[in-house]
Amino acid sequence: DIVDSIAAALAAGPLSGQHILVTSGPTHEPIDPVRYIANRSSGAQGSAIARALVALGARVTFVTGPAQVPPPDGVQVVRVQTARQMQEAVTQALPADAAVFAAAVADWRVAREVTSKIKKDAAGTLPVLEFTENPDILAEVAQMGAGRPALVVGFAAETDDVVAHARAKLARKGCDWIVANDVRPETGIMGGDENAVTVLSAEGADSWPRMSKDAVARKLAARIAQALST
Amino acid sequence: DIVDSIAAALAAGPLSGQHILVTSGPTHEPIDPVRYIANRSSGAQGSAIARALVALGARVTFVTGPAQVPPPDGVQVVRVQTARQMQEAVTQALPADAAVFAAAVADWRVAREVTSKIKKDAAGTLPVLEFTENPDILAEVAQMGAGRPALVVGFAAETDDVVAHARAKLARKGCDWIVANDVRPETGIMGGDENAVTVLSAEGADSWPRMSKDAVARKLAARIAQALST
Repeated sequence: DIVDSIAAALAAGPLSGQHILVTSGPTHEPIDPVRYIANRSSGAQGSAIARALVALGARVTFVTGPAQVPPPDGVQVVRVQTARQMQEAVTQALPADAAVFAAAVADWRVAREVTSKIKKDAAGTLPVLEFTENPDILAEVAQMGAGRPALVVGFAAETDDVVAHARAKLARKGCDWIVANDVRPETGIMGGDENAVTVLSAEGADSWPRMSKDAVARKLAARIAQALST
Repeated sequence: DIVDSIAAALAAGPLSGQHILVTSGPTHEPIDPVRYIANRSSGAQGSAIARALVALGARVTFVTGPAQVPPPDGVQVVRVQTARQMQEAVTQALPADAAVFAAAVADWRVAREVTSKIKKDAAGTLPVLEFTENPDILAEVAQMGAGRPALVVGFAAETDDVVAHARAKLARKGCDWIVANDVRPETGIMGGDENAVTVLSAEGADSWPRMSKDAVARKLAARIAQALST
């Protein structure tokens, strides 16, 4: 109707009319009612990417784990805790023209979550935790048949052999791009304001200089807009 | 000197001149550079207790894990991540007239922290985590000889048989009081604004009605002031 047309005209960025799914933040995988396994993602890079996509006119569904950084304005927010909840929210959010999987999803969860607080047993023996694999959300979406987003972007947080691990991940997952970064504690990237990424695709590896996470987000959003327009 | 005397006169609450140590928040125990084990403590109750003690004139050292709730004004803040760091900070903060251990310290940590991100091995086998015991900060301070605070208060977060477990903890740790609460998810206490506690001591069990965490803190601070004055 006319209101939508006016809104569209006002928001006439290069991503106007496109629906983009962005995942962000960590997941929390429960061990028992009081303990969980988490990872150090602050959600800063995912929030910045969603904000940059909105600024280019995209409609963004933002599926976020328990992040420290709040979601940007202007997105539809879906809050989850675990990888399985994130998988469900992603499925619900499709179809999308592009999907950017910036969340640091736990690869595994505790095999047997218990409903009472774990204690030492009578002999004073400590628990041993066994794990089971979480769903691989990136691979599932990247390898969909009908309904696959035209562009599927994964992230790789690595501590060594960053580009080699990311190159292997690109092939294994079947996504279009991998945004790889080095999260060794001494880089200060995890939890910090800056990022230094390499964007890998079938066309090659594009290493960007270290810059703010906002600047990485704007550069990535511009590259996504270009990819969806061709 | 005269400035101190004036400051003391202005702050002439019942805890004026007393140094109280308060621990608060969760601890984070690293698994590898990107993953850690955490617990659901928000730090809300510990922050409220420290604030209530300051309001009664105490000098408070506030040793806090990575909490969601900020420290109150007017305390000396010491920030830590792990149980071992908290133990070190507590040792540094002593002597104290009273010590309130409101932190949800992890009972155990991963036996072998690794410095590279854990991956599945070549056979696709998932990791098994083994644990080792963390220092028992409450028991260590409660069982000190010379230099023990006159009043040592522990907390017990339980999911079943709350009072029985807390009674056993009081005896095992050697502290003066245990503040016990029920953290089953359905109570909404962990991460919420309210608390329902039972204060156990050699004199018996005192169950308080459900009230705000601020009200619990004021009631506990008043009880601490009374105990230190007799």
